[in-house]
Amino acid sequence: EAASNAKPADLSGYTRVKQELVAPPFAPKHDQVAKGGPKIIEITMETREVLLTVDEDTGAQIWALTYNGSVPGPLIIAHEGDMIELTLRNPETSVMEHNIDFHASTGALGGGGLTHVYPGEETVLRWKATKPGVFTYHCAPGGAMIPYHVCHGMNGAIMVLPRDGLKDGAGNPLRYDSIAYIGEQDFYLPVDEDGNYKTYEAAGDDYADSVEAMRSLKPTHCVFNGSVGALTGENALKAKVGDTVLMIHNQANRDTRPHLIGGHGDYVWEAGSFTDAPLTGLETWLCRGGSAMAAMYTFRQPGVYAYVNHNLIEAALLGATAHFVVEGQWDNELMEQVVAPRPYGA
Amino acid sequence: EAASNAKPADLSGYTRVKQELVAPPFAPKHDQVAKGGPKIIEITMETREVLLTVDEDTGAQIWALTYNGSVPGPLIIAHEGDMIELTLRNPETSVMEHNIDFHASTGALGGGGLTHVYPGEETVLRWKATKPGVFTYHCAPGGAMIPYHVCHGMNGAIMVLPRDGLKDGAGNPLRYDSIAYIGEQDFYLPVDEDGNYKTYEAAGDDYADSVEAMRSLKPTHCVFNGSVGALTGENALKAKVGDTVLMIHNQANRDTRPHLIGGHGDYVWEAGSFTDAPLTGLETWLCRGGSAMAAMYTFRQPGVYAYVNHNLIEAALLGATAHFVVEGQWDNELMEQVVAPRPYGA
Amino acid sequence: EAASNAKPADLSGYTRVKQELVAPPFAPKHDQVAKGGPKIIEITMETREVLLTVDEDTGAQIWALTYNGSVPGPLIIAHEGDMIELTLRNPETSVMEHNIDFHASTGALGGGGLTHVYPGEETVLRWKATKPGVFTYHCAPGGAMIPYHVCHGMNGAIMVLPRDGLKDGAGNPLRYDSIAYIGEQDFYLPVDEDGNYKTYEAAGDDYADSVEAMRSLKPTHCVFNGSVGALTGENALKAKVGDTVLMIHNQANRDTRPHLIGGHGDYVWEAGSFTDAPLTGLETWLCRGGSAMAAMYTFRQPGVYAYVNHNLIEAALLGATAHFVVEGQWDNELMEQVVAPRPYGA
Ligand SMILES: [Cu+2]
Ligand SMILES: [Cu+2]
Ligand SMILES: [Cu+2]
Ligand SMILES: [Cu+2]
Ligand SMILES: [Cu+2]
Ligand SMILES: [Cu+2]
Ligand SMILES: [Mg+2]
Ligand SMILES: [Mg+2]
Ligand SMILES: [Mg+2]
Ligand SMILES: [Mg+2]
Ligand SMILES: [Mg+2]
Ligand SMILES: [Mg+2]
Ligand SMILES: [Mg+2]
Ligand SMILES: [Mg+2]
Ligand SMILES: [Mg+2]
Repeated sequence: EAASNAKPADLSGYTRVKQELVAPPFAPKHDQVAKGGPKIIEITMETREVLLTVDEDTGAQIWALTYNGSVPGPLIIAHEGDMIELTLRNPETSVMEHNIDFHASTGALGGGGLTHVYPGEETVLRWKATKPGVFTYHCAPGGAMIPYHVCHGMNGAIMVLPRDGLKDGAGNPLRYDSIAYIGEQDFYLPVDEDGNYKTYEAAGDDYADSVEAMRSLKPTHCVFNGSVGALTGENALKAKVGDTVLMIHNQANRDTRPHLIGGHGDYVWEAGSFTDAPLTGLETWLCRGGSAMAAMYTFRQPGVYAYVNHNLIEAALLGATAHFVVEGQWDNELMEQVVAPRPYGA
Repeated sequence: EAASNAKPADLSGYTRVKQELVAPPFAPKHDQVAKGGPKIIEITMETREVLLTVDEDTGAQIWALTYNGSVPGPLIIAHEGDMIELTLRNPETSVMEHNIDFHASTGALGGGGLTHVYPGEETVLRWKATKPGVFTYHCAPGGAMIPYHVCHGMNGAIMVLPRDGLKDGAGNPLRYDSIAYIGEQDFYLPVDEDGNYKTYEAAGDDYADSVEAMRSLKPTHCVFNGSVGALTGENALKAKVGDTVLMIHNQANRDTRPHLIGGHGDYVWEAGSFTDAPLTGLETWLCRGGSAMAAMYTFRQPGVYAYVNHNLIEAALLGATAHFVVEGQWDNELMEQVVAPRPYGA
Repeated sequence: EAASNAKPADLSGYTRVKQELVAPPFAPKHDQVAKGGPKIIEITMETREVLLTVDEDTGAQIWALTYNGSVPGPLIIAHEGDMIELTLRNPETSVMEHNIDFHASTGALGGGGLTHVYPGEETVLRWKATKPGVFTYHCAPGGAMIPYHVCHGMNGAIMVLPRDGLKDGAGNPLRYDSIAYIGEQDFYLPVDEDGNYKTYEAAGDDYADSVEAMRSLKPTHCVFNGSVGALTGENALKAKVGDTVLMIHNQANRDTRPHLIGGHGDYVWEAGSFTDAPLTGLETWLCRGGSAMAAMYTFRQPGVYAYVNHNLIEAALLGATAHFVVEGQWDNELMEQVVAPRPYGA
């Protein structure tokens, strides 16, 4: 056992707090600048296997593997120097073994080696957040089960803020009014010989078919927050002109290139680390597959903004589109329709 | 209407100028350092649907959707703080609706929401270039029509220079002798049951087949400036030893990784923003799908340089190769063939 | 001939040394900080065509095209300002023509234009390393032969260190205890109508099938150092807690996203140039297809670390997994299994 002759951890300098996790696209209550000394942040996650409709139009479904029932799993927020103490529970009703690998942590396969829970089991893992940034976490039971679980939705993100908050390249503080937490998921749904999405009785029944589908490297769906349209229409994100939103993008498996149509990334931590200066004024940013990253934007115009994976095939045909609906006053200096569409001379 | 109760724009500080757009790979006349105060730059673009031969060897054709007849559309150049005033005309002979989304602009889906022109219509849009960098523009009529138009060639780039020109990371001025404007286009040409590229009577007739082909995420062609060989042979780019060329790469849909065989990127604005210091001394740089970026190189040796997408399958089999032909004096200190190929002892 | 009227090179300031190349994942003997003035580093490489088992489980084989018999070819190490003088030999027993394009060099297609050697031939090329960084080299005989040779393993990396060694963004020296040199290779193995990997009598016999397979853009294998498991089990990389390893990742054709499970990139030269400050504290980094890059990490915990391409399908199903086995003392403050998996109440 790795820890057999190791010194006990000295936790005397830490204060214990509980963090109530909430469903995406929302963020748990948190301070942008840390108050007081380092914390041990207690969280609980449950590994839930749920039948998820990926696309209502086609009826495509998947037995999703999740943390707390959502794809992506909940956003966790800490500050550099805090510890995360996770209780991970796998309900007795589950079919499969699960665990968790935190990219933000150090050692034991990101905790994956210490957290294998079979149905009916729980475990508790504590680790120290030494690197500030946004990081993926995901299930990684081993071998082909790793992409199988990750590509069934079992991933999410943690944000480790600098204790004094986010900063621009000159060290000036950067603050946001809200967080939009977006998990992009590539699904590889098996199809039958007629090209219809196959259905399965229970979680895990699609394993052999899924492994074959994944080998194609061609996702059938690239969706935000679990399903086509999960962040559009009545579920669209909301903001006002002047609001600064921190967009956290999680993609645990496959490169993607977020873009805010009509807006920009004023500050973009493209590789996800807060120890590097953010890039500025970007049109499109690359989220490396297997990472979480953050982009900050202050809305300057009202209207609908589409937030997409700017492989437009993936955005429009495979599902990777969300909407922000922004209220406020139009600014004709930034943009004006000088002449509305009209017939012109023959 | 978004602008209904908005204040009128104050244009009193601006001077009006016209910019004559030219076909790629060339750049319109421009100053690297802005002269005088901010301008309103008037440009006109026409949405032309043209039958384009993508590959003469196979006869592969597409009813390309274009701005001004070329793939990519013309390069636009402005300085930070200028306004672009575009007249967009859709000829009566067109089949389809078009519009334009400028990644460099702010609001209304990058102008896409204000510029839908049906055949026979024109519109005028004015917007302020607040972010310096190189940015994609593209047609985005909505839904599946977005990737359909973009993957039929309807995209291009604008460069928004800092008023005082380009700079290295220490703030020293960087100047170029010429611009090479290269648009990389992923085409998804439908094939028949014998594997031959299908032909169509008119623009838009390939819509259903194209949507199916795009879903594969596997382009049949990745070409520079519209067709295989558009920038090789007699159309190769020209330079002399000592010349500094600014290579502007536009890819509106799909990640690519430009590389100059035999050369480098001395300065590379990889994510396209001029408010960030350029990367230096790169072998290969990533152009995020849905972006335009710039790389600057001073030629040090004569000869032929191949400029490629360094997925070499895409370069050699799908078409992503251009040539620079560079004249001047060979430098044996940089490279010398000490022993020409010869038989060696058995 | 390019060099016909060129001045002879002045080599008077250089000292000649030989560098013995070694097989991956190892690095040749070298100084991290250059001793003395500039060197002419003499190396020899042989173009060997070898039958390679890519995956023992399936028996998948390829007639690999190699430098010195390994995939990737050997790591070369120089300092900025040194010259590389390569003798390239193509054995008489070879079937094919080969050459070499050094991304680190300047002119003549990276030397590719001056080094075409047919079976039984040798050539000598000398070039100056003017750009510090890690760079790919690869065979590039022309046309479709370029991806064919590169996707048959014919690529490797050179590291050009700053004369005073590696530095962080503040200019502080960065030193490593060891190098792990990992070449990721995408293979496109032809399959027969039953889905079995085809076998061939000799190098080159798979050419037509390979070109067709490459056009799919879908590799059948993404392996580290030539075959599935080449860097796991008894071939796993070794380190101790406190050791700093420099991971050099080479991918000559296709984007990849290395990740060290349970660890990080403390310093990452993501685009491979040593004239740019390294990124810090990364979970996952992007290796642009057609480049080599470097990431530095100091191990803080014992145990097994999997180093993967974090497209987990490519890692687990296509082969892109290596292991580091790290010895030392576990640190419970960084991570502790507070409660081992146990049943929990019904
Ligand atoms: Cu799981
Ligand atoms: Cu991971
Ligand atoms: Cu259009
Ligand atoms: Cu766009
Ligand atoms: Cu070769
Ligand atoms: Cu190359
Ligand atoms: Mg297991
Ligand atoms: Mg505000
Ligand atoms: Mg990250
Ligand atoms: Mg419409
Ligand atoms: Mg000059
Ligand atoms: Mg750009
Ligand atoms: Mg040849
Ligand atoms: Mg040490
Ligand atoms: Mg490199």
